[in-house]
Amino acid sequence: MAQPTLAVVGATGSVGSVMLELLSSRRNHWGEIRLVASARSVGKSLTCRGERLDVLPLTAEVFDGVDVAMFDVPDAVSEHWAPIAVSRGATVVDNSSAFRMRPEVPLVVPEVNKDAVKSRPIGIVASANCTTAAMIIAMAPLHDEYGLRELVLASYQSASGAGQLGVDTLHDQLAKVAGDRMLGSRTGNVRQAVGDDLGPFPAPLALNVVPWAGDPADLGWSSEELKLRNESRKILGLPALKVSATCVRVPVVTGHSIAVHAVFAAEVTADGARQALRNAPGVILVDDPESGEFPMPIDAVGTDPSWVGRIRRAMDDPRALSLFITGDNMRKGAALNTVQIAELLATEIAKRST
Amino acid sequence: MAQPTLAVVGATGSVGSVMLELLSSRRNHWGEIRLVASARSVGKSLTCRGERLDVLPLTAEVFDGVDVAMFDVPDAVSEHWAPIAVSRGATVVDNSSAFRMRPEVPLVVPEVNKDAVKSRPIGIVASANCTTAAMIIAMAPLHDEYGLRELVLASYQSASGAGQLGVDTLHDQLAKVAGDRMLGSRTGNVRQAVGDDLGPFPAPLALNVVPWAGDPADLGWSSEELKLRNESRKILGLPALKVSATCVRVPVVTGHSIAVHAVFAAEVTADGARQALRNAPGVILVDDPESGEFPMPIDAVGTDPSWVGRIRRAMDDPRALSLFITGDNMRKGAALNTVQIAELLATEIAKRST
Ligand SMILES: NC(=O)c1ccc[n+]([C@@H]2O[C@H](COP(=O)([O-])OP(=O)(O)OC[C@H]3O[C@@H](n4cnc5c(N)ncnc54)[C@H](OP(=O)(O)O)[C@@H]3O)[C@@H](O)[C@H]2O)c1
Ligand SMILES: NC(=O)c1ccc[n+]([C@@H]2O[C@H](COP(=O)([O-])OP(=O)(O)OC[C@H]3O[C@@H](n4cnc5c(N)ncnc54)[C@H](OP(=O)(O)O)[C@@H]3O)[C@@H](O)[C@H]2O)c1
Repeated sequence: MAQPTLAVVGATGSVGSVMLELLSSRRNHWGEIRLVASARSVGKSLTCRGERLDVLPLTAEVFDGVDVAMFDVPDAVSEHWAPIAVSRGATVVDNSSAFRMRPEVPLVVPEVNKDAVKSRPIGIVASANCTTAAMIIAMAPLHDEYGLRELVLASYQSASGAGQLGVDTLHDQLAKVAGDRMLGSRTGNVRQAVGDDLGPFPAPLALNVVPWAGDPADLGWSSEELKLRNESRKILGLPALKVSATCVRVPVVTGHSIAVHAVFAAEVTADGARQALRNAPGVILVDDPESGEFPMPIDAVGTDPSWVGRIRRAMDDPRALSLFITGDNMRKGAALNTVQIAELLATEIAKRST
Repeated sequence: MAQPTLAVVGATGSVGSVMLELLSSRRNHWGEIRLVASARSVGKSLTCRGERLDVLPLTAEVFDGVDVAMFDVPDAVSEHWAPIAVSRGATVVDNSSAFRMRPEVPLVVPEVNKDAVKSRPIGIVASANCTTAAMIIAMAPLHDEYGLRELVLASYQSASGAGQLGVDTLHDQLAKVAGDRMLGSRTGNVRQAVGDDLGPFPAPLALNVVPWAGDPADLGWSSEELKLRNESRKILGLPALKVSATCVRVPVVTGHSIAVHAVFAAEVTADGARQALRNAPGVILVDDPESGEFPMPIDAVGTDPSWVGRIRRAMDDPRALSLFITGDNMRKGAALNTVQIAELLATEIAKRST
């Protein structure tokens, strides 16, 4: 039996480059792999599975003979090109937000709802948003145990969530503020030191926190905040789940964190929650604050799981838990989740052809 | 009528130095001012109200003739010395956490409960914790309007909350990580660059967020988290208020922020909340995210008010609001609140003596 052919659309981007690392280090599911990007990248070559591969331009023909196409490109590019890839016979796994909330598109985090990939009426499967993916892996086992009713969320999102430009901007700003020990102690002096180059952010990120990520959505909420609500509901299959999120950018390179207050139908205990999480797929429990063990971006970056800790039962509500979660937004939040979905499809194809 | 005599205990510390700035720039309420610190600081002199003053060592005699003594020193120093100052005839305003929760000590944020200073059975008035003070100024007018029932809080606390050593540590770490554009993109590489010098923090703070501040308290909660609960209840006079807080340190020099989800007895509207906050004492409303207006530490630092914005009614609960608050933890969170209380006492003394 021949192994399936994979296309990686957006192979030159920041999610794409993590994708190539993952394809090179995970158990191989693929025959041919095609690396695709914009016409700007033609002439480049990239390494994947130890082989040097030329980058191909995005055209309809590039999908001929492709079984699975992973899209790690801006929303508008996915929106236009994913249906074309499907029309050429590929199944698409899309990492943008273009298709996530369409009822005919399954939204998948494999540790939580992998069976949802089986029904894909328009040939497209969506991969969850970075903050949602890291969080939902920890919430699903707690939901199974106690019955989730409500989430109150506050995020600590890193610069790389805004792509390579976000990372470069933070490093540039850090170089400007480092060394001047007066910065951050007088109003406006960080603004002055950073200057006008804010990159993709609405304000300086170095020595600051910026309580705004994404685009304006409804009634004062940002698009990032509503993604957390809508995607959590869809992935868990809980259309009435109450969700209030505040999304905040912090001066961290990679690794999104989230402070979670979760209310359940049943009474909870911190030990019961730890027990439910200890063997949960995709979760690593780091919960011993007195020994300095709690989830942090500097440890979670470059790793696959969601790091979960600071588990406490609410003092004033026996049905509520507080916890803190950190995940690598480029991995579980993007490339890893997408490649896991693609591998589910590869397994299905392999079964079908035997 | 002679103006009252003031002692500033801890004048050489980081809160103390902001205190001297405030005493130099606010309307003057004081006759003699005595600057007090440890024996280590004897021989130093500091400027206050344009005058050069010698630092006096902390002794019982230093309080003879003092009307009001402000304490900006570690808990243990307050605990020992505040009663001695009282025995010498002074009224003490203490900025440490030593006395805040004692039933016989009023805990005061003047914008919210200034009348509480009038009853001080043991001669001590406590000033609120930095995060609580900034937050409660915004919550009190909303409580008056809608009746507060529950707070879910996630903080973004700055390095200066851990004193001058915290500030120095963050600057040292920033100097070490700036310039290396690979840092923050691989697990552990920030730890390696920062090295072992963590100062007062349990982990590197540069390019990181640390979900632990204060000391271990009960059942996995930190002392900082319980202060938010206990002090909010006491200041608002709501002993049954439900509070769950997660306290997180972020790489910001000065300015504590807090994401608030507040549940009320009555239905709320975002516009009604804005209206209640627009003229509230000590509050500045910055709530136009599409024009880049939201509360941030780089703007709030060095200013007196609590900056409040990102006001949204919960999508799933007409009685709940989400908002974001930033305040200068060295001012409203410490020196400013303390000096405001001291000024209330000065006014009372002035009235009594006429
Ligand atoms: N960063 C995250 O944390 C994260 C998490 C979850 C989801 N996502 C989503 O993943 C997607 C990619 O994000 P990223 O951070 O990797 O962005 P990026 O670094 O800007 O990379 C964008 C990629 O898309 C390609 N591309 C852009 N326009 C194209 C076009 N017209 N035709 C063909 N290819 C085109 C680029 O190719 P060229 O190099 O040729 O321009 C590049 O490979 C976005 O939808 C993003 O929202 C990102
Ligand atoms: N930083 C904040 O955001 C903040 C906010 C709210 C409340 N607070 C509280 O305010 C207090 C001061 O904090 P800080 O940040 O200013 O600390 P700091 O920078 O370490 O200053 C400590 C001050 O206390 C004096 N001191 C220490 N031990 C003493 C002793 N045995 N006898 C006499 N004086 C002594 C020091 O004098 P020497 O210089 O002579 O050693 C110095 O003036 C603490 O209780 C803190 O928890 C701080």
